[in-house]
Amino acid sequence: MISIRDVAKMAGVSPSTVSRVMNGTAKVNEEKRQRVLNVIKETGFKPNETARSLYKKSARIIGVILPNIQNPFFNGMAQAIEEEAYSRGYRLMLCNSDNNLEKEKNNIDLLSRMNADGIILLTNQDGIRETIEKCKVPVVILDREVKADNQVACIRSDHYKGGRLAAEHLVRCGCRKIVNMRGDQALSSARDRFEGYLEICRKYEMAPCYIDCRYSFREGLKKTEEILKLYPDVDGIIAGNDMVAMSVYKVLSKKGYRVPEDVQIIGYDNISLSELMTPELTTIAQPISDMGRASARALIDYVEQKSNEDNYHFDVELIQRDTTIMKEGGSRK
Amino acid sequence: MISIRDVAKMAGVSPSTVSRVMNGTAKVNEEKRQRVLNVIKETGFKPNETARSLYKKSARIIGVILPNIQNPFFNGMAQAIEEEAYSRGYRLMLCNSDNNLEKEKNNIDLLSRMNADGIILLTNQDGIRETIEKCKVPVVILDREVKADNQVACIRSDHYKGGRLAAEHLVRCGCRKIVNMRGDQALSSARDRFEGYLEICRKYEMAPCYIDCRYSFREGLKKTEEILKLYPDVDGIIAGNDMVAMSVYKVLSKKGYRVPEDVQIIGYDNISLSELMTPELTTIAQPISDMGRASARALIDYVEQKSNEDNYHFDVELIQRDTTIMKEGGSRK
Repeated sequence: MISIRDVAKMAGVSPSTVSRVMNGTAKVNEEKRQRVLNVIKETGFKPNETARSLYKKSARIIGVILPNIQNPFFNGMAQAIEEEAYSRGYRLMLCNSDNNLEKEKNNIDLLSRMNADGIILLTNQDGIRETIEKCKVPVVILDREVKADNQVACIRSDHYKGGRLAAEHLVRCGCRKIVNMRGDQALSSARDRFEGYLEICRKYEMAPCYIDCRYSFREGLKKTEEILKLYPDVDGIIAGNDMVAMSVYKVLSKKGYRVPEDVQIIGYDNISLSELMTPELTTIAQPISDMGRASARALIDYVEQKSNEDNYHFDVELIQRDTTIMKEGGSRK
Repeated sequence: MISIRDVAKMAGVSPSTVSRVMNGTAKVNEEKRQRVLNVIKETGFKPNETARSLYKKSARIIGVILPNIQNPFFNGMAQAIEEEAYSRGYRLMLCNSDNNLEKEKNNIDLLSRMNADGIILLTNQDGIRETIEKCKVPVVILDREVKADNQVACIRSDHYKGGRLAAEHLVRCGCRKIVNMRGDQALSSARDRFEGYLEICRKYEMAPCYIDCRYSFREGLKKTEEILKLYPDVDGIIAGNDMVAMSVYKVLSKKGYRVPEDVQIIGYDNISLSELMTPELTTIAQPISDMGRASARALIDYVEQKSNEDNYHFDVELIQRDTTIMKEGGSRK
């Protein structure tokens, strides 16, 4: 078998020049380039991928695209990605897509042209699939299902179980009128959680009560006011995420409701704030750091052609803190 | 005066080929390249900078280096930088330096090699000055003084005034034992704020009471416990920033103190959380968004050789919310 050294010798250049010509990573004198190309053509030389990756000048950059840099859930993931990537010699480029499809496309384009080794995409945009499929850089999708043909991995947690856990916890805490602030049903995560809630409604023969509320603090304030009008006997609220739960608490406490005595609240995600706020928030924990690290591992293993043993489906768990309370004999079960 | 069109005509190529040769932005056939170089040499052609910047393929990338991607103060700034940059056709690359000098140097190096048009640096590292001075990319320093010779601008707010405002507000709210949780005195911002506090102590003939506490929620929890032991008669706490103020509130409320009736709290920064938390936090507002936008404007104006009218020193103001209360006749003044 012919080696890169043989090609170099036959073309009268150094092996690194052959590598530069093959990878287009640096300028090579035009005449030398032709000599190398001719030898490659004549000999039918094909470098094996391992040798190629040794010679290939990798930028060792991972691009991470976040929908919102001010959202603690995404930031928590980005932090974990950064730690994992750094430990393996990769640096991170973070791009903020501002929940805007055009910016997201722009960022994918920019990262490709910068020779990023791969992209980890956190997105709320359905329209992004085509862009991913056109993109020559490997892409890992984090926290969403996009189903692009060429995605390396899709890393998610069990939202259906999360929806069930949240609802069943409130039932066990004695709540009899549980209102679900369900997230945007265009998102598979929000749909799955709501399905989980509906299962618990069926199990305990409760009529489903819900209101649509996007994952935003501001919207949470407004929607909590609506809940109090629509369901004056509410005694348990499932917030779409922890930020929304913070706004539920604010509205309830301004109106003189006691939490958890009068109304119990459960959030979702377990962002660091859920523990920092007072009272500390009962929530469904997604393993934010584990998911971030797994996404970086999946991508880097792919880039480095290592086999990856990662499980891409993560479990969720209930974290009980101060906004819910188990009442003796209060459970319907 | 000879123009780029003349050079192109004389070399028998298009003006964009001349531009590509001059800027090295794309591959040009070697023979054409030589012809262009010969004409440039013969005619002594020198493009003026405006024309050059029109032809020059700018990456239109601004690099932003943050010490901690999970800190809402830095994220708020990054968001504003992104908005301003995007409106002017630049994209952002965010790098997380993790408060680590080596990572910060690495990031500056990476952004330079990527042909970023400029860098906006948020740093807590004194040792970074040399790296900035070696860096060929223009740098704007945000929120800190670094005094690198080649920095384009240094954008800061008036921390001395902020320190005075916080202390005087608590005096006016009737506090008689005000404890200052001063930030790391290696940082000029923290020193300036503490000096402002000392001025108010002199003005009202109060003995200064303080404890060192870095800008971290975790440390805030521990240091609040210490304050309660060291100063059991404390009735006002100046937290180093809003995150620390959240931890002060948590410890006080767990121990049964009422806020603001027993102890009043003032934060610093006015991050969005200060308004989201319950009770809403009295704080000293830095104009986070304005500062972020100004840093992007200063950098882009410099890159595009426009004159910049920005003022780089920002005012701060008191935002009174629920953790302090003006008592009738309670002021010493």
